[in-house]
Amino acid sequence: MSVTAAQGFAAAGVRAGIKASGNPDLALVYNLGPSKAAAAVFTSNRCQANPVLWSREAIKDGVIEAVVLNSGGANCYTGAAGFQTTHATAEKVGEALGISAGDVIVCSTGLIGDQLPRATLLDGVVLAAAALATTPEAGEDAASAIITTDTHAKQAVFRGDAGWTIGGMAKGAGMLAPGLATMLVVVTTDADLAASDLDAALRRATAVTFDRLDSDGCMSTNDTVALLASGASGIAPETAEFTVGLTAVCRDLALQLQSDAEGASHDIDIAVVEAATEEDAVEVARAVSRSNLFKAAIFGNDPNWGRVLAAVGTTTAAFDPYGIDVAFNGVQLCKAGEPFESRDLVDLSPRRVEVLINLHAGSRSATIWTNDLTHDYVHENSAYAS
Amino acid sequence: MSVTAAQGFAAAGVRAGIKASGNPDLALVYNLGPSKAAAAVFTSNRCQANPVLWSREAIKDGVIEAVVLNSGGANCYTGAAGFQTTHATAEKVGEALGISAGDVIVCSTGLIGDQLPRATLLDGVVLAAAALATTPEAGEDAASAIITTDTHAKQAVFRGDAGWTIGGMAKGAGMLAPGLATMLVVVTTDADLAASDLDAALRRATAVTFDRLDSDGCMSTNDTVALLASGASGIAPETAEFTVGLTAVCRDLALQLQSDAEGASHDIDIAVVEAATEEDAVEVARAVSRSNLFKAAIFGNDPNWGRVLAAVGTTTAAFDPYGIDVAFNGVQLCKAGEPFESRDLVDLSPRRVEVLINLHAGSRSATIWTNDLTHDYVHENSAYAS
Repeated sequence: MSVTAAQGFAAAGVRAGIKASGNPDLALVYNLGPSKAAAAVFTSNRCQANPVLWSREAIKDGVIEAVVLNSGGANCYTGAAGFQTTHATAEKVGEALGISAGDVIVCSTGLIGDQLPRATLLDGVVLAAAALATTPEAGEDAASAIITTDTHAKQAVFRGDAGWTIGGMAKGAGMLAPGLATMLVVVTTDADLAASDLDAALRRATAVTFDRLDSDGCMSTNDTVALLASGASGIAPETAEFTVGLTAVCRDLALQLQSDAEGASHDIDIAVVEAATEEDAVEVARAVSRSNLFKAAIFGNDPNWGRVLAAVGTTTAAFDPYGIDVAFNGVQLCKAGEPFESRDLVDLSPRRVEVLINLHAGSRSATIWTNDLTHDYVHENSAYAS
Repeated sequence: MSVTAAQGFAAAGVRAGIKASGNPDLALVYNLGPSKAAAAVFTSNRCQANPVLWSREAIKDGVIEAVVLNSGGANCYTGAAGFQTTHATAEKVGEALGISAGDVIVCSTGLIGDQLPRATLLDGVVLAAAALATTPEAGEDAASAIITTDTHAKQAVFRGDAGWTIGGMAKGAGMLAPGLATMLVVVTTDADLAASDLDAALRRATAVTFDRLDSDGCMSTNDTVALLASGASGIAPETAEFTVGLTAVCRDLALQLQSDAEGASHDIDIAVVEAATEEDAVEVARAVSRSNLFKAAIFGNDPNWGRVLAAVGTTTAAFDPYGIDVAFNGVQLCKAGEPFESRDLVDLSPRRVEVLINLHAGSRSATIWTNDLTHDYVHENSAYAS
């Protein structure tokens, strides 16, 4: 389903020939209206790819008619020629659909520093425009065309009680860290909301979903989450109600990204509770999620709580270093800074691991979703040039 | 040589029986005087081990007569019983040498969260006190007794022109990050300097040596660098002159730690030049040193400069994202944010790799020493519980 689940959207995914493998590599999502309201958030990395530079401008008026996405190349640090390729892509979409290039978001993913094959890409746009359809299959084709090292396409759908729908697709796999993960996400809805309401909802939803995913601590140059509203359902839900549904779709997609992260053998939820502030909870959870020693221990099924505390101690959060509790999968290994239950009680063989850190410093909490550090992660990221 | 290279120091390294392997695991360094001036710096981790809590107090008066170090257990997060073990260790050293326990620095390294076998440790102190000698071999024994996953002991010596000497020993291997690496270091000198001068020299030296080592981004709970001065040479060099020698010894030891980091197959120097400030240069170099994707690429001999820029972009340093140059081993792969020379010109097969990042934002520079991310790193830190 994904981006064609909501009324008023057509999509396509085609083999443009950008990827050497010959796999699908170009997707197009088209808003049939009547509304063309949209919002988008981008990587907070200061080194940004050409499509991000373009799309930041395109979204400024809150109107987007189409999103074109390619895998097989990030078009990042490719200079003026690379920017021209992005511009030409938007122009070609505009020409094919009879819309303005300025209402087209462009997304690219793949290796940094290589030029995209411009002619191949533009021919692909024509192919994709011809293949546009509102069917579930068309949504699936689009979701499949944007993946890189992902093992499968990611899609999610939420249906509001009143009859409006949100659908989304995502690609991720590597360079998954906050300020958005390495990912391209397109979410569509037939709810009728103004661009400013979409923007507020999207920022609220991504702050507690994609921004809480930190698989490998590496922040991408190309991250984009675009939200397009067709208004085709004729229903205008309250922003708060819409945000609940949007957050559900974003959370679903984020957890799919976590579960399919490059080389991972464990999905780890790092929950920090009783923090003084939500920012403290996020800072502590993120510090643990970035400890290679902790992540390697989880790969080895070793409930090494000392490595958790060593990471907690690098933060500026409010806590008494000797007042912290740490539990792995419900077994409290450390209580107030001392060994408590036995490590032998912890079974880390299931893929999902929950680490619970109680700071005893307040009443706020947050969870970061991460993965373990494995041989396969090292292999994929040393052998695969991306 | 190491800690017995300077006049006025005795040392020993013995098999106390703390390590299950039966390898040497307890070292003692004794300052024979006439001066007992000392300085020390400790981990900036807020979660600190019991020996660090003890030693921070012991150094406050600038007088230290002995340092006792054990491998086989970090004595961190072991509660009141753990602190009593550290206290008892200092008391036992005091008793054996006829000095005050308050003039003894205690260092421990190994697994967090396990109690040390107190009786075994105290018996080891008696053994070590009986074995104290001023010979080069005694210094080597001490250096060997403090290692954990290190493959060999680390020692360094500097001889001042006027006839004074600095010698040092170090252990490292894992949890190597700033605010000191996971390491215990004892440096001795027969120069005659006041504690305040030693402190100034030590802070200056460690800031540009041990604090620039960031092997795996993980900060330890036990890091200690102790500097003891016997004054036995009868020579009182200028603090600036002494700092040069001390920095040379610390740099030598830090580079030995880098070369022997757990599982590493490359030693990577990340040099940032033309930064607006030294802090900017350090921030940028450290961000790159903590990118798992960059580190995995180096393991795979892949000069992936895109991953360098993606890491640079996460910092707050002053730069124009499209004005940055990146070179690998002298080959300028990226010039002003565009591809320049061919990746094929870069040979990453030698162990040492230099990544040069020119921010074109000023005139300051800094280098961080790091390592690649390898299968062996993952293996050692998943299979080895420490």
